[in-house]
Amino acid sequence: MQPAATPREIRESIRRGQWVKPTSGLAPAFAQANLVILDRSLAFEFLLFCVRNPKPCPVLEVLEPGGFEPRITAPGADIRTDVPLYRVWKRGELHAETPEIRAHWDGDMVSFLLGCSFSFESALLASGIPIRNIEEGRNVSMYITNRPCIPAGRFSAPLVVSMRPIPDDLVVRAVQVTSRYAMVHGAPVHIGDGSALGIEDLDSPDFGDPVTIHKGETPVFWACGVTSSLAALSGRPELCITHSPGHMFITDSPNESWAVI
Amino acid sequence: MQPAATPREIRESIRRGQWVKPTSGLAPAFAQANLVILDRSLAFEFLLFCVRNPKPCPVLEVLEPGGFEPRITAPGADIRTDVPLYRVWKRGELHAETPEIRAHWDGDMVSFLLGCSFSFESALLASGIPIRNIEEGRNVSMYITNRPCIPAGRFSAPLVVSMRPIPDDLVVRAVQVTSRYAMVHGAPVHIGDGSALGIEDLDSPDFGDPVTIHKGETPVFWACGVTSSLAALSGRPELCITHSPGHMFITDSPNESWAVI
Repeated sequence: MQPAATPREIRESIRRGQWVKPTSGLAPAFAQANLVILDRSLAFEFLLFCVRNPKPCPVLEVLEPGGFEPRITAPGADIRTDVPLYRVWKRGELHAETPEIRAHWDGDMVSFLLGCSFSFESALLASGIPIRNIEEGRNVSMYITNRPCIPAGRFSAPLVVSMRPIPDDLVVRAVQVTSRYAMVHGAPVHIGDGSALGIEDLDSPDFGDPVTIHKGETPVFWACGVTSSLAALSGRPELCITHSPGHMFITDSPNESWAVI
Repeated sequence: MQPAATPREIRESIRRGQWVKPTSGLAPAFAQANLVILDRSLAFEFLLFCVRNPKPCPVLEVLEPGGFEPRITAPGADIRTDVPLYRVWKRGELHAETPEIRAHWDGDMVSFLLGCSFSFESALLASGIPIRNIEEGRNVSMYITNRPCIPAGRFSAPLVVSMRPIPDDLVVRAVQVTSRYAMVHGAPVHIGDGSALGIEDLDSPDFGDPVTIHKGETPVFWACGVTSSLAALSGRPELCITHSPGHMFITDSPNESWAVI
């Protein structure tokens, strides 16, 4: 991939099967999205879950039933082919992992694109705040917490958080920088001791990889889009399709367009 | 009404039929809400309309089908009795105006509570920015613009805006103050000449009352919750219930809880 590739060029490359890898670092100025696809009969309840829990599940776009072009955030894209890797779930169990889902598509499917913390990572870096998982070439550490989201109909989930160790003297700045991005997870949900969230061991994340926490750094926790996948599967829907972790949908919306001030 | 009455006390007074008047100025520290009630068969499309148009239609709470207690923003309240005056619409036409709607209620109704600009008016006043319609004891001036909202299913509407004349040297401050309230309409959508929005005569608002614009003041326009009523009625639903203009639902949520930073 050319470093200066546009979101459209990257999506076309993904569509041709030339990029079946995580999307971290691609088109860093543009919002990447978590994907959840459900039958229209579940769409109201799931959208309600997202609206009730905007910090972990910020809605970037919801497509009409059967629609596969995200006309608002990525005109011309195809939600069935433009994610590098999908997971297909049946009754809450993993059924397949596949680079395109046209074979599974039907006209009653509703696609939800939800915000991703990649959107504020560029802003943290631009403020001189190091991001350990990027430095160490790992996936961000994610943890299931003891905080329940507000349920909606059949959907419920614990809040999932991502953790980044921040140098003590930059914690305030990290809060300020990410607060601007209220529509893509926004400010942290917790600073400091993970046990307040029911996290026993930071070295054993539930998703992603552990990262090094140096002396003089504080763990800072942000609401994480993985919450939306757990919620979707909690309803044990007949069929649910999500992106594969780290393999996000890349929109044409600049991260800055999701900053609230 | 006692000046220091709590939202709960005010709602109880409304429930007993002792306050069938506009709610402007009541419990000013707490968020007031626009109300739209629709059948569950329309709920997904209408919620999608709101999510696609968050500036005019910011979602404070959506109740489960048949639910009449807003458990998140006003536990113990009853959406069927706690609004001073309701409008009942059939197939998009006004059918009745009534102080309670228990007779119209059924178990398939979904209630939407949407943000209201009263939430940022207190903050404007606290910053020394005058609000002309309050000074003149009138309803705020509202206009239908030439800007279409993004439609969703059968629901569409032009953007409706409210206008407040702001002293020229306080316009920047007004933008800053209201930007904080991104979840309750937020920053203005336009500053200055109304003709850019298709508004021909500021003295002839489509809703509310005209107000005086003094020399040295600039008209400033904010997205308005009336948009949600127009959108709901655009679908010509068999039955739709809304609040009567100015007669809002008063929640227990402090306005500050909706400020994004």
